[in-house]
Amino acid sequence: MIKIGILGYGNLGRGAEKALAGAPDMRLSVVFSRRGDLNIRTAGVKVEPFEKLDDYTGKLDVVICCGGSATDLPLHTPLIAAKFNFVDSFDNHANIPAHFEKVDKIARSHGMAGVISAGWDPGLFSIMRLFGEAFLPFGADYTFWGRGVSQGHSDAIRRIEGVARAVQYTMPSQIAIEAALSGNQPQFTSREKHTRLCFVVIKDGADKERIRQEIITMPDYFAPYDVIVNFISVEEFEGSHLGMPHGGRVIRSGGTSESNNHTMEFKLKLDSNPEFTGSILVACARAVYRLKAEGMVGARTVLDIPPAYFSPKSAAQLYKELL
Amino acid sequence: MIKIGILGYGNLGRGAEKALAGAPDMRLSVVFSRRGDLNIRTAGVKVEPFEKLDDYTGKLDVVICCGGSATDLPLHTPLIAAKFNFVDSFDNHANIPAHFEKVDKIARSHGMAGVISAGWDPGLFSIMRLFGEAFLPFGADYTFWGRGVSQGHSDAIRRIEGVARAVQYTMPSQIAIEAALSGNQPQFTSREKHTRLCFVVIKDGADKERIRQEIITMPDYFAPYDVIVNFISVEEFEGSHLGMPHGGRVIRSGGTSESNNHTMEFKLKLDSNPEFTGSILVACARAVYRLKAEGMVGARTVLDIPPAYFSPKSAAQLYKELL
Repeated sequence: MIKIGILGYGNLGRGAEKALAGAPDMRLSVVFSRRGDLNIRTAGVKVEPFEKLDDYTGKLDVVICCGGSATDLPLHTPLIAAKFNFVDSFDNHANIPAHFEKVDKIARSHGMAGVISAGWDPGLFSIMRLFGEAFLPFGADYTFWGRGVSQGHSDAIRRIEGVARAVQYTMPSQIAIEAALSGNQPQFTSREKHTRLCFVVIKDGADKERIRQEIITMPDYFAPYDVIVNFISVEEFEGSHLGMPHGGRVIRSGGTSESNNHTMEFKLKLDSNPEFTGSILVACARAVYRLKAEGMVGARTVLDIPPAYFSPKSAAQLYKELL
Repeated sequence: MIKIGILGYGNLGRGAEKALAGAPDMRLSVVFSRRGDLNIRTAGVKVEPFEKLDDYTGKLDVVICCGGSATDLPLHTPLIAAKFNFVDSFDNHANIPAHFEKVDKIARSHGMAGVISAGWDPGLFSIMRLFGEAFLPFGADYTFWGRGVSQGHSDAIRRIEGVARAVQYTMPSQIAIEAALSGNQPQFTSREKHTRLCFVVIKDGADKERIRQEIITMPDYFAPYDVIVNFISVEEFEGSHLGMPHGGRVIRSGGTSESNNHTMEFKLKLDSNPEFTGSILVACARAVYRLKAEGMVGARTVLDIPPAYFSPKSAAQLYKELL
């Protein structure tokens, strides 16, 4: 049994825990959390404060870092990579190369191995973009997200004065999707690809019009998009907007000769973003365990993992059943 | 430049040749063919009979075996694996384990490396089935093919007495696809998933009704399916049925907890099956070259290849551009 530690017990940590419960070859050994008084789902598993990490060196095969990319993972993963093999889901695209370099260096100097930026985007979608480029080198690729909850955009709204609760759904344009699938290789602006749909609960007496303006003019997050802001009651919010659905698709459209065009399309429809992401992180932890056993040290990404390493089955069984 | 040989110059060999023309890091060095009088597309490349294979030992990095799975590859790949690194597209699902074992043994004893059963199914679709199983272990998966030309089924019709020309299109059932995507994890019979649509040109005086009966009652190939047989003129055949379009999709539907279901769907729409397959074989040859450089010997499949190895780009560039 591969012994796993989970660091951080938010939505993603709970998703990874559920996936571990279904993995025949893995066992959750410990959850590390800032909160000491935590009750977790898995019976008989200890919850420890971060300060107890060192008590577990040599006792865990892989630690799955389940914190957020904004402030947690830039601290957690380098800390873990000095003591344990690791997986994280760092998703701040622009900072991935710097995060990789830092974590890789620490892991190498301590003889540890791990995978960063796992999940579905970055992650599974990155693999699909690579397949698109490698198998249809003369073409264009398109990533659409949604309909789904963007945690980052929801947080951005919640930081506005007078906002009590908020959720933002990223909505892909069906027209743009159809154009991308047409084979004509169109180009799109941000506005043409996605719309941002917001549901906001305001605090008593807050000014709706000011809040709406602050949302729709927010640089990067909302200004480049068509934005719809709906103000709703706390009851409606709690009745309809507590789920974390998401999804999206990666499309590659390209030609192999003058008259022959091809389309590759990968699509995800997820009821729970953190549970699906957690499931991928667990499969990555299995891959890290195996790569480490073969002598790998340092950091890798999903682009470097042979697909068979994600599965608990043997190569011979996979060839027989899946090829 | 990675030096490539192509063995067999049918549709697939020509597809691989076109893909090589667009690969910045690879060069077609020689085509081996049973036919000596061949004119090939790439200027300045020699065409050699099979007997000249030994003249090229040590001069080619990888040989792409482009023959058919029924009679060519069971002979060609073992022959090549004793002399060169190799890629093939062996697609006789039931015989893959035996083919693998034979080729692997020969390659190991001669210090060669290669990938068998590459292409899109087996190949890319196999990877998708594996991702489905690994990331959504509690679920069901579905592979649909078409609309597309099945070479095997077309050949089977052509072997019937009185048939001059024939093409068979595999047609997926839209109803079954929608049911597979519903999240209810339905089970299907062969008949419910695919229909077989045939266009047949008969020889003068042949008996249409007898031919129709021979087609629809043919075991394995047609008997388990709803079959539509259209008799057409040679002019209509040549006007509308010389292309080799294909495609299909792999669907995985599964849950991560009581209330949360997820769907993964990968879809291909191909104007030319052999050109797309050829493009994948060329990317696999690149991967074989790299794996061999790292010391690999023996046979592998696409399930064992790190995705990054399919691309001519460096890992750092891929992380920056695709993650």
